[in-house]
Amino acid sequence: MTQLPNLHSRKYYLTAAQCNAQHELAPGQLIQQIIEVATEHADILGVGFRALQSNDNIWVLSRITFELNRYPKMFETYSLNTWIESYNRHFSERNFELRTEDGEILGYARSIWVAINQQTRRPADLTEFAHLATTVIDRPCPIDKQGKIRIPAEEPQIANSYTFRVSDIDLNRHVNSARYVELILNQLELSDYDENHLKRFEIEYKQEAHYGNTVDVTSTQTDNGLLTAISNNGGTICLSRSILVKRNN
Amino acid sequence: MTQLPNLHSRKYYLTAAQCNAQHELAPGQLIQQIIEVATEHADILGVGFRALQSNDNIWVLSRITFELNRYPKMFETYSLNTWIESYNRHFSERNFELRTEDGEILGYARSIWVAINQQTRRPADLTEFAHLATTVIDRPCPIDKQGKIRIPAEEPQIANSYTFRVSDIDLNRHVNSARYVELILNQLELSDYDENHLKRFEIEYKQEAHYGNTVDVTSTQTDNGLLTAISNNGGTICLSRSILVKRNN
Repeated sequence: MTQLPNLHSRKYYLTAAQCNAQHELAPGQLIQQIIEVATEHADILGVGFRALQSNDNIWVLSRITFELNRYPKMFETYSLNTWIESYNRHFSERNFELRTEDGEILGYARSIWVAINQQTRRPADLTEFAHLATTVIDRPCPIDKQGKIRIPAEEPQIANSYTFRVSDIDLNRHVNSARYVELILNQLELSDYDENHLKRFEIEYKQEAHYGNTVDVTSTQTDNGLLTAISNNGGTICLSRSILVKRNN
Repeated sequence: MTQLPNLHSRKYYLTAAQCNAQHELAPGQLIQQIIEVATEHADILGVGFRALQSNDNIWVLSRITFELNRYPKMFETYSLNTWIESYNRHFSERNFELRTEDGEILGYARSIWVAINQQTRRPADLTEFAHLATTVIDRPCPIDKQGKIRIPAEEPQIANSYTFRVSDIDLNRHVNSARYVELILNQLELSDYDENHLKRFEIEYKQEAHYGNTVDVTSTQTDNGLLTAISNNGGTICLSRSILVKRNN
């Protein structure tokens, strides 16, 4: 049996054109890159998009949490390392470590992926990929797992609406996972991100939104962070929790 | 004198996560990559962001036109090659060729970059970078140069508005160049892109938009293509022309 590469790594370089207003990697772009390296690693392990599609199955991203000491800066080279923390017939927990070329650890991320059948939308049976269990590695990911996000019953403090258009749609004809993150970040002002560091971000994907859907994006600041819901006619699309801390500089 | 690399090339791979609904590279993402390779090449030639910034100057993207036989497809590796077609004290014409690993030419792009002083917003004097003239190469870029885009005086057929938020802002605290492209693409419906191929796209950047600005995005279908203007209180931010042709498949 060939040894599978249980730790997958991809190097990125943050160009000026890719920076956000704080001259850092934008959190939405980080989520996009997390999905990219996860997808690549799944391909390498033989459980990628194409392997699952042959049985009409698909990986669905259920949760992402990341917690960073700092974001990659302009002109910085950094690596995203990923590995599987646990795996069973229906879902896998995949972790990430973000580090600079000098070995400085910028932070970690956790994600949960569920395999479903594209037609029935029911959990897929991944018994045929049982070999994945042998790729699980015991590597530290010292950030808390994502808890249940409970949106307060009170009227939200910030409310916006958005209608999904052509540029928001991904290959499955759902809204791009990173786009929700941008809508959530957009609930705060530019000055909030100038003054604060988005230390921890959690998102729980509940239901897919589609082209033309108009969603409500509602947020409330609580002792537990900024809690945001994206919903469509009362149905929850996703929930999120953002923890911002004052920047030192 | 060291020979400067007059042709710069960067390889890209289109992952599933990056695809649009047509399983292709999204045009907004192509513009982002065009800007990326242009920026990289400018850095290599010693006229990048940092070199200009030391004199408080900055490159401003004035125009991009691209014309593609087809877009890179999912799981395809492609290269963006770039070179300078002409250069003078105030601006440079930079071209691009998009080709697959097998050497199939997917298309070409043209761009015009102007250097301005960040404080005065007046054209910068780039005399000190005169060595750039020696990097100009004579390489075919067989697509028409961008002409003047004239918006019809009549009432536009498609009108939307959009307010720029946190995730739309770039490192210069202006709206990201690719974001305008997305707003322009969003003027049409998803089915328009399913049925048609965006063969040629032109954008002329006239003025910067900022965080919090609300813009009108207005389009009219003419014999000359779909003409779109993004404007803010009557001031033109950018103009665009899109040529769509029926897909063969």
